[in-house]
Amino acid sequence: VAKIGFLGLGNMGAPMVENLIEAGHIVHIYDVLPELRAPLVALGAIDALTPLEATRDVDIVITMLPSGAIVRQVYEGPTGIFNTLDCRGLLFIDCSTIAPDDARALAAGATRVGAEMIDAPVSGGVRGAIDGTLTFIVGGSSQTLEKARPVLENMGRAIFHVGEHGAGQTAKICNNMMTGILMAGTAEALALGVRNGLDPGVLSDVMRKSTGANFVVERWNPWPGVDQNSPASKGYAGGFKLGLLLKDLDLAIQSAQSSKAAVPLGSAARNLFQIHALGAVENVGMDMSIVQSLYYPISIAESVQQPALMLPRGN
Amino acid sequence: VAKIGFLGLGNMGAPMVENLIEAGHIVHIYDVLPELRAPLVALGAIDALTPLEATRDVDIVITMLPSGAIVRQVYEGPTGIFNTLDCRGLLFIDCSTIAPDDARALAAGATRVGAEMIDAPVSGGVRGAIDGTLTFIVGGSSQTLEKARPVLENMGRAIFHVGEHGAGQTAKICNNMMTGILMAGTAEALALGVRNGLDPGVLSDVMRKSTGANFVVERWNPWPGVDQNSPASKGYAGGFKLGLLLKDLDLAIQSAQSSKAAVPLGSAARNLFQIHALGAVENVGMDMSIVQSLYYPISIAESVQQPALMLPRGN
Amino acid sequence: VAKIGFLGLGNMGAPMVENLIEAGHIVHIYDVLPELRAPLVALGAIDALTPLEATRDVDIVITMLPSGAIVRQVYEGPTGIFNTLDCRGLLFIDCSTIAPDDARALAAGATRVGAEMIDAPVSGGVRGAIDGTLTFIVGGSSQTLEKARPVLENMGRAIFHVGEHGAGQTAKICNNMMTGILMAGTAEALALGVRNGLDPGVLSDVMRKSTGANFVVERWNPWPGVDQNSPASKGYAGGFKLGLLLKDLDLAIQSAQSSKAAVPLGSAARNLFQIHALGAVENVGMDMSIVQSLYYPISIAESVQQPALMLPRGN
Amino acid sequence: VAKIGFLGLGNMGAPMVENLIEAGHIVHIYDVLPELRAPLVALGAIDALTPLEATRDVDIVITMLPSGAIVRQVYEGPTGIFNTLDCRGLLFIDCSTIAPDDARALAAGATRVGAEMIDAPVSGGVRGAIDGTLTFIVGGSSQTLEKARPVLENMGRAIFHVGEHGAGQTAKICNNMMTGILMAGTAEALALGVRNGLDPGVLSDVMRKSTGANFVVERWNPWPGVDQNSPASKGYAGGFKLGLLLKDLDLAIQSAQSSKAAVPLGSAARNLFQIHALGAVENVGMDMSIVQSLYYPISIAESVQQPALMLPRGN
Repeated sequence: VAKIGFLGLGNMGAPMVENLIEAGHIVHIYDVLPELRAPLVALGAIDALTPLEATRDVDIVITMLPSGAIVRQVYEGPTGIFNTLDCRGLLFIDCSTIAPDDARALAAGATRVGAEMIDAPVSGGVRGAIDGTLTFIVGGSSQTLEKARPVLENMGRAIFHVGEHGAGQTAKICNNMMTGILMAGTAEALALGVRNGLDPGVLSDVMRKSTGANFVVERWNPWPGVDQNSPASKGYAGGFKLGLLLKDLDLAIQSAQSSKAAVPLGSAARNLFQIHALGAVENVGMDMSIVQSLYYPISIAESVQQPALMLPRGN
Repeated sequence: VAKIGFLGLGNMGAPMVENLIEAGHIVHIYDVLPELRAPLVALGAIDALTPLEATRDVDIVITMLPSGAIVRQVYEGPTGIFNTLDCRGLLFIDCSTIAPDDARALAAGATRVGAEMIDAPVSGGVRGAIDGTLTFIVGGSSQTLEKARPVLENMGRAIFHVGEHGAGQTAKICNNMMTGILMAGTAEALALGVRNGLDPGVLSDVMRKSTGANFVVERWNPWPGVDQNSPASKGYAGGFKLGLLLKDLDLAIQSAQSSKAAVPLGSAARNLFQIHALGAVENVGMDMSIVQSLYYPISIAESVQQPALMLPRGN
Repeated sequence: VAKIGFLGLGNMGAPMVENLIEAGHIVHIYDVLPELRAPLVALGAIDALTPLEATRDVDIVITMLPSGAIVRQVYEGPTGIFNTLDCRGLLFIDCSTIAPDDARALAAGATRVGAEMIDAPVSGGVRGAIDGTLTFIVGGSSQTLEKARPVLENMGRAIFHVGEHGAGQTAKICNNMMTGILMAGTAEALALGVRNGLDPGVLSDVMRKSTGANFVVERWNPWPGVDQNSPASKGYAGGFKLGLLLKDLDLAIQSAQSSKAAVPLGSAARNLFQIHALGAVENVGMDMSIVQSLYYPISIAESVQQPALMLPRGN
Repeated sequence: VAKIGFLGLGNMGAPMVENLIEAGHIVHIYDVLPELRAPLVALGAIDALTPLEATRDVDIVITMLPSGAIVRQVYEGPTGIFNTLDCRGLLFIDCSTIAPDDARALAAGATRVGAEMIDAPVSGGVRGAIDGTLTFIVGGSSQTLEKARPVLENMGRAIFHVGEHGAGQTAKICNNMMTGILMAGTAEALALGVRNGLDPGVLSDVMRKSTGANFVVERWNPWPGVDQNSPASKGYAGGFKLGLLLKDLDLAIQSAQSSKAAVPLGSAARNLFQIHALGAVENVGMDMSIVQSLYYPISIAESVQQPALMLPRGN
């Protein structure tokens, strides 16, 4: 049983905390939105009114926050963990997706205050967080990872140790760039088929069994009604917000700039998603599979009422 | 036992014929290159010196040819099957990948001469053809498909009936456009990771277990040495030639033009592969995964000697 | 003074006829839409109820039609010019923008019936047609061009002889692909500046005097209100329809396919315009500069009332 | 007559200094490469062994440096101008192309030490610097610009005041993104024409007089031999280095990220240039028009010996 401080209780963080509680750990929680804390307190978490309070009496701090700037503020800010807490001997696990350079700077800061840190961004989405089947992609030393492993195993199934500090973020970013390409590409292929008379469900079946198989067509189908469990069949609610995908694609492109790599499809996908975000501000808060309607305009109301729409329309 | 005429004995056609012979069928074979016929004759196929000779005494004609123009010449040309053979009651199965419009025209021609036809392009690659695990993507009537099914099952495992004449081609083209996107996208993601210090094998493992999972990273890894069975580990030999992928991407873009669909990632991938073909003419005859070297220059000699290259290079 | 039959009286054809009449030629006119003929008859053109009637008693036939299929039907169809008219000694000038292969087929047909032909697509837009300042881009023999030159000079200012039959179309297509890139690129650059606080008019001035100078920023500014004479300042009316630009971009991509050329920016532009066409069917009939609103949503009503909009909006 | 300290004596800075000397100013110069200073000393410039020495006794400091990091080090570093010089009353003119955020931070720093600053990046290239026909794109207050104007007019012809601090950089970046699009697009259009049989010079003429007209086809033709004065006709020497264009495209994309703008063509161009840089490290130091060979492989040796190459080649 570990004493854990957990900061960041969004769609991902909250179910991760639930799994930690269920595994028997003592979990102090904090989020700027109080309404996110209450349901977890009901399950046994210990409420905290400040980040400091949530981390004062723990062995392990886990952060699951929406941007690198916020993560750095929480650790390095004037009232942040490094500057207000006796950090000696602590283990910091940052599960946020942030820039590798930020991860390296944070790890160096942790060393300076006598603590250890790993970057451990996750893959698997909200469903994986709930089921406890997340994949952790870890950068840092093997020794630190071994200390973190038991707790990570309470929240996920697979743990990849991919290199030194920052490497977890790099691998996550490469993977998520690929995810963006898969989503935009699958939406494009489905729309091409439907505009040429195919049923989107039948075409999805063909692709799943052929060389076009990919995570999106298998488990995140963007066409409303094809997969009853996908966000597309629920009005594009839940899932992975378009705005967050854009953040990750931007991180990938920044990495490509600093390493002088070429990312033509990742960049094309980024700009297609950005165009879709510009077209209607509400798209930003919906699941990224809303990009389907860029290729084949479908109103969400229609999509919910009339699944598996297949009539060609538009110009 | 069926009497079959089989035209087109390339990397795909030859192993398909082998599986038909093994299943006990009588197979007459023809190809413009005599050297492709001899090994199959040794296995029991009946040699023919002309397409007419190969199809004169059969119930079923199967074609596996490299372009729509050639398929149409073989069936509709002045000395083609429709004009020189008594076609009444015959079953034509075209397994080539061609434009849906060509498939529809051929099916109409078959009807005029009293025959039946399906378009049945395949997915699964050379490996699938050898193992008899191809996927057939069929357009045409259900009745005709039922007549063809026993023979198709001798060459493949899955059969999708996706719609009327031409629909098989449409679905194949959509799938292969996706394949091109997967290949270019995976090559791009791996190069981004390696230029930022990751091992390509480790990053591939992460992607296979995460939201970036796709057919290419799973079974066609473009990085030399990561998967010993992939063409990339064999000097980019075997597999699916870049020139043939370009043909399929061009078909997809033509379909997008005629149906007024948008295919930004498919088009971007097409142009990247075309740029790679322009850079070195020998790329056209290599497996499409050679596109990896567009993002991360690796000489093929190096790639064979020194698998799992991982040092960043280039600018 | 020449006797001319003129087929196709749209935005371009009508003012071209006016200039021919003004130059003193006898012009027989035809269009499927009778309402397009009346105003020209008022100016002195001779009305015809069929293409045959318009071309029966002339020395020169000029065609200005919207697609290759229509041009070929007019010349080669069962009731077309080649099959119903005594063509010996006639001069055919096709000013339509069509595929080079179609142009070559038509020229060969003209030769067969004893006539001469050039492909002479134009650049300069509606304004150039009205002012008589069109540029003609001519493919065919020098001798034929010399016969056509006096008439062309009545409609335009510059005449380029770029090669054999079809070469005029090829050059036109390359130029128009560039135009599409200029339009999409300028719209993108302006939106980037405005979202970062610049005034679109000031940024346009900078670009016009710098290395970003181009025809679009100079004479076709896509931002409403920057240039009072541009279609963008008139509700995107007039100008060059998005639907026609898409036709030309598709021709360029077809040429790239058949010649194995890479056209990454032309393809990207084509797909951006296509996405914009899918987003709202009315875009297809508007000037291509409507693509500005893909990058920076502006309602047309607003754009007309409130020129030089500059407040950032959208996400 | 002003006393000027000038830091950065590369292809642009050196001729700018020459024009200042010619106008009668006293110019103290510094560059980390001593060999760049000697020729200017011969013309009357005053040599300095450190930046501090070059700026100690002046009224105006002009910087023309290759990156934002270097500019910030020169002004803000521990031994930088702000920290080692009495800056009260000085005028700082930064002509480098850097990120707008960097420009704003520098201007704030200048205010803190009692000086004034403008960002004044230039357009016009090496030719413009030599001829004294540069365009200055200025961000900052009108009063500060008026103080700088006489000196700017000694180096350039046009001065655009585009907004507050940083706005000069924003406009420059938007313009240079457009330049990259023009270069890649023109190279693509020329290659498409040549592969379809056109002469590159004739096609360039057509485009210059048509709707495809742009700065690149007019004054920076990328096809060897078409314009004897363009870098392409001189082995791609001189001009604007591919590596510097990539830097500017990366700045544009960063601005798009922070302002949530879509830059699909700018991003596509960036990745094409990056691919070309990866293909051969020497490309980075050549004029950006070397991108022509990505579309149509031409060896530089050939291009110099045999201008106006026009035979189609490659696959």
